[in-house]
Amino acid sequence: MAVTYELIKTCKQSGARLGRLYTPHGTIETPVFMPVGTLATVKTMSPEELKEMNAQIILSNTYHLYLRPGEDIVQEAGGLHAFMNWDRPILTDSGGFQVFSLSNLRQIEEEGVHFRNHISGEKLFISPEKATQIQNALGADIIMAFDECAPYPAGREYVKASLERTTRWAERCLKAHQRPDDQALFGIVQGGMYADLRAQSVKEITSLDFPGYAVGGLSVGEPKEVMNKVLEETTPLLPAGKPRYLMGVGSPDALIDGVIRGIDMFDCVLPTRIARNGTTMTSQGRLVVRNAQYARDFRPLDPQCDCYTCKNYTRAYIRHLIKCNETFGFRLTTYHNLYFLLQLMENIKQAIRNDSLLDFREQFFEQYGLNQPGARPF
Amino acid sequence: MAVTYELIKTCKQSGARLGRLYTPHGTIETPVFMPVGTLATVKTMSPEELKEMNAQIILSNTYHLYLRPGEDIVQEAGGLHAFMNWDRPILTDSGGFQVFSLSNLRQIEEEGVHFRNHISGEKLFISPEKATQIQNALGADIIMAFDECAPYPAGREYVKASLERTTRWAERCLKAHQRPDDQALFGIVQGGMYADLRAQSVKEITSLDFPGYAVGGLSVGEPKEVMNKVLEETTPLLPAGKPRYLMGVGSPDALIDGVIRGIDMFDCVLPTRIARNGTTMTSQGRLVVRNAQYARDFRPLDPQCDCYTCKNYTRAYIRHLIKCNETFGFRLTTYHNLYFLLQLMENIKQAIRNDSLLDFREQFFEQYGLNQPGARPF
Ligand SMILES: [Zn+2]
Ligand SMILES: [Zn+2]
Repeated sequence: MAVTYELIKTCKQSGARLGRLYTPHGTIETPVFMPVGTLATVKTMSPEELKEMNAQIILSNTYHLYLRPGEDIVQEAGGLHAFMNWDRPILTDSGGFQVFSLSNLRQIEEEGVHFRNHISGEKLFISPEKATQIQNALGADIIMAFDECAPYPAGREYVKASLERTTRWAERCLKAHQRPDDQALFGIVQGGMYADLRAQSVKEITSLDFPGYAVGGLSVGEPKEVMNKVLEETTPLLPAGKPRYLMGVGSPDALIDGVIRGIDMFDCVLPTRIARNGTTMTSQGRLVVRNAQYARDFRPLDPQCDCYTCKNYTRAYIRHLIKCNETFGFRLTTYHNLYFLLQLMENIKQAIRNDSLLDFREQFFEQYGLNQPGARPF
Repeated sequence: MAVTYELIKTCKQSGARLGRLYTPHGTIETPVFMPVGTLATVKTMSPEELKEMNAQIILSNTYHLYLRPGEDIVQEAGGLHAFMNWDRPILTDSGGFQVFSLSNLRQIEEEGVHFRNHISGEKLFISPEKATQIQNALGADIIMAFDECAPYPAGREYVKASLERTTRWAERCLKAHQRPDDQALFGIVQGGMYADLRAQSVKEITSLDFPGYAVGGLSVGEPKEVMNKVLEETTPLLPAGKPRYLMGVGSPDALIDGVIRGIDMFDCVLPTRIARNGTTMTSQGRLVVRNAQYARDFRPLDPQCDCYTCKNYTRAYIRHLIKCNETFGFRLTTYHNLYFLLQLMENIKQAIRNDSLLDFREQFFEQYGLNQPGARPF
């Protein structure tokens, strides 16, 4: 088995899990946040910077790498690790989400999905077999089954048909998978916001005995309370001895609330995307450093942060760079935001060790301003 | 005196100078190439990366910093060194060149220059006093007199009137300079492509006894042979005990030829600008890594280079990043190009020590392909 999970401890206060994920490129302490490196690069960052901030694993996008540079080139380079000079674990998604969200012309059939390249307009086709073959060529430690992520809101009949097709596609991915010894294929649970359909999906997908499970179809526009409820209805049904991955979630509040509901892995473009817009996450909440009020503010982004950015640069300098569209400004905000989330995960792990994750949540929400009416996490 | 120059050795073969420049932020070994950090950042690079590649001094642009963020903010931050987290020497230009080249609406008077902000269109005025005051606020180790850089070609009468005004402006800069103890104000020689006018300018400017001299008005579109001829006619007239700075020159051939003609300091946006276009300088000559021929080329940019980029990344990966407009690609090409030029300066210094700079030139030009008909340095 390419990847195995060890449950170390459960938080007595919250039920949150502390664990370890053993992969061909090293061990990951969970719960873990995975920075997103869509095109074989975490935007603006070097691998050394990601290691310096203790990123344990990064995610890369199959759909994007399939289009550019093409999985054959990555394979010829010796796989994604060699291609991008990253020797720690990598997870690739299946491309399904991008096919559904980026391509405006797509047609779903039992066989797979017809769609247009969102850059060139070229007609393309991805099936479960194709998605698996591309991911085998890319060579990530963890690869994902090709699924359909239903939109929100979606009617019960649509969601049911979609989750059942996702199960059939998951079986086809398993059959197509050529490298089970060094790549772990994770299954994906769907079922929308319907508790019984989630239960049906869990039953079907876990019967296929994947080394790990993702909860898909969340963070697609539903209210936060709905996401938390679906997690509460879903994660208890998943086997305790396998890792659980909540896809597309990266706001501080959702990370904490996801861990409390038994999630071990997260990924999201949020910290890197907002950084390039001059928005940062700080211990006091959201800080839009490009705003005029910071023009003469010579304090660090977050006085409580000890990251490279906060140790060496002021809000005034970072604002100046971002106003001038200078790359180094985006490097500085990206570094800080990723560091902030990775540090948050460290604090979450410590709270699990101390059986005090609910106390930590209360404290963090208060300091971050999330308990105020109309609070805007991001 | 803020900055002093020590002539260490003259190359017996070429007459090139090896020296040391003592500044408030450390000693610079000359000849030196200065990377350009227009807006208080060398585009895409961190200060640590610049130090890692042994950049001894960087240049920043007064005109650009005056417009954004404004010299008052830089001064409040504690000066340019503190603002941008760079504790090695800095040189600021006077802003004259940008006023003449970037602003399409400008009017030169004896008092100074009226021009429009090239971003907002706002009407502005810079005089020798104003340029000096801005540079005093920025706080670089070396600051430049406000001059007029005549265009090429330009008639003799125009160039003569212009160089004489430049002398009068140089006197006014000296009088306006408020920080002679920790900022060295360099004078600028003009005179276009006319040998006798260069001699006149040298005589007038050196009579003011600046701690260093720039040769201005070159690299403005004239053929390479013309630039070399003007240097041959100008540098022998400059005092041997002061540093000589050739502004706006950074192609490998021109650096070597400038040093041979007695130049100690250079700056240019060339290596950083072409890097962002996917063009690199290698020991075998120009290499446009964004070209399709490198899509499956898994060699480093320059197999003879031991920079961070060449040690860790392939042409195929860098091409992929640049084609996708990924910042990290521009970081990698920028790093390599700057490293290449800084390493070239190391090799030039070694050749001066060995009294063999003409031999080095011959060898370099041959390997770089500069001896071939129609050779294109950049
Ligand atoms: Zn920070
Ligand atoms: Zn290199």
